[in-house]
Amino acid sequence: MRILVVGATGTIGRRVVEALRDGNDIVPVSHGHTPITVDFSNPASIQAMYRAVGQVDAVVSAAGKAKFAPFDTLTDEDFAFTLGNKLMGQVNLVRFGLGHVSDGGSFTLTAGYLARSPMPGATAISLVNAGLEGFVRGAALDLPRGLRINVVSPPWVSETLEALHRDPSSGLPANVVARAYVRSVTGTESGVVIDP
Amino acid sequence: MRILVVGATGTIGRRVVEALRDGNDIVPVSHGHTPITVDFSNPASIQAMYRAVGQVDAVVSAAGKAKFAPFDTLTDEDFAFTLGNKLMGQVNLVRFGLGHVSDGGSFTLTAGYLARSPMPGATAISLVNAGLEGFVRGAALDLPRGLRINVVSPPWVSETLEALHRDPSSGLPANVVARAYVRSVTGTESGVVIDP
Repeated sequence: MRILVVGATGTIGRRVVEALRDGNDIVPVSHGHTPITVDFSNPASIQAMYRAVGQVDAVVSAAGKAKFAPFDTLTDEDFAFTLGNKLMGQVNLVRFGLGHVSDGGSFTLTAGYLARSPMPGATAISLVNAGLEGFVRGAALDLPRGLRINVVSPPWVSETLEALHRDPSSGLPANVVARAYVRSVTGTESGVVIDP
Repeated sequence: MRILVVGATGTIGRRVVEALRDGNDIVPVSHGHTPITVDFSNPASIQAMYRAVGQVDAVVSAAGKAKFAPFDTLTDEDFAFTLGNKLMGQVNLVRFGLGHVSDGGSFTLTAGYLARSPMPGATAISLVNAGLEGFVRGAALDLPRGLRINVVSPPWVSETLEALHRDPSSGLPANVVARAYVRSVTGTESGVVIDP
C-alpha cells in the first residue's frame, strides 16, 4: 500500500511510520520537517498537499493542534484555532482526500481520550476530540467506493509524559499506541473509535 | 428560579417552558418570535441578549441549527455554519453567560442522539452533537461558583417526525423529552449527557 502519514515526525506519527514501513510505501508529511508539508489550519494547504502527494491507498493523521487552558480563559481565538486545526484540519483531510484515495482505501484520524474522560483545563480539547469521534461515526456511513474511516483515541503517551516530567507509567508507550493505527489501516473496520 | 430558555418557541422549547413554568419566572428567547431575540451564529447577539436578560438562575438551550446533507456534498460554508451555530452558539451561550448566572445555577444544552447513533447524511450533525457532549463533560470540571452544566441528547421528536410525514411512534413526544431538561435544571448533576 501507498500510505500518507500526516504528522509523521511527531511522537505517535514516528511510531506509526515504523509500524507500517515494512512492505508499504510511506509518504511522510508534517508541518515543517518533511519534503511535503501541510498546515492543517489552512484548507488550501491541505489541497496543495494532496496535489503533491497524488494517489494513495490509506491516509493516516497523527496531527492536529488544540488549546489546553481553563474554560473561562479560552478566547474566541482559542476556540477558532482549536476547531480550525485539530477538528476541521482532519475533517478537511478526509473531504479533500476523497479523490485521492483508491477504492477500498481508508482514513485514520486522531482524537484522544479526553473526548470521554475529561480533566480540568481541557474543555476545548474534549470538545474537538468528541467531535472527531462523532464525525467518524457519521462519515463512515456516507463514504463511497468501499472507503473506510476510523479514529484512534489515544490516552496520554508515555514519551509525552516524560517530556513533561510526569510519571510515564500512567500513559501508553507510543509504539503501543501505533498498533491502533495499524489495526485501522490493515483491518476491515469502519466508523470505529479505537482505544489503544 | 429565573430561567432563561433559548429556543423557547421551538418544538422542544415550548414543552420545556410548559414543564418549568409553575413556580419559576421564565424568560423566553428565540430567533424571532419573542420580545428578546438572539442569533446563535453571532457572538455579539448572544452578548446583547444577556445584557437584555440580566441575571438568571438557569440557562436552557433548546436551539441551534445544523446542516443535514450527505458528506461529499457538505461545503466549507455548511461546516462553518453548523460549527458556528449549533456548536459555538451553545458554547458561547455558556462562555458569555458565566457573569449572568447566580451561584449554584446551571446551563442545559441540546445535542442529539446522532452523536452516538449515526445515520447517512448526518455527518455534520453527528460531529457537532458529539462535540457538545465532549464540551459539557469538560466544562463541568472548570465551572466556578458551583455552576452546573449538562446536555440533553434527544432522539427524534414525535412532533418533528409527524411534520416530516414519518411514523411518530419511532420518536419520543416533546413533553417527554422536556422532562430531561427539568431533571438537569432542578437536579444536582453536572457534566452529564442526559438521554431522555
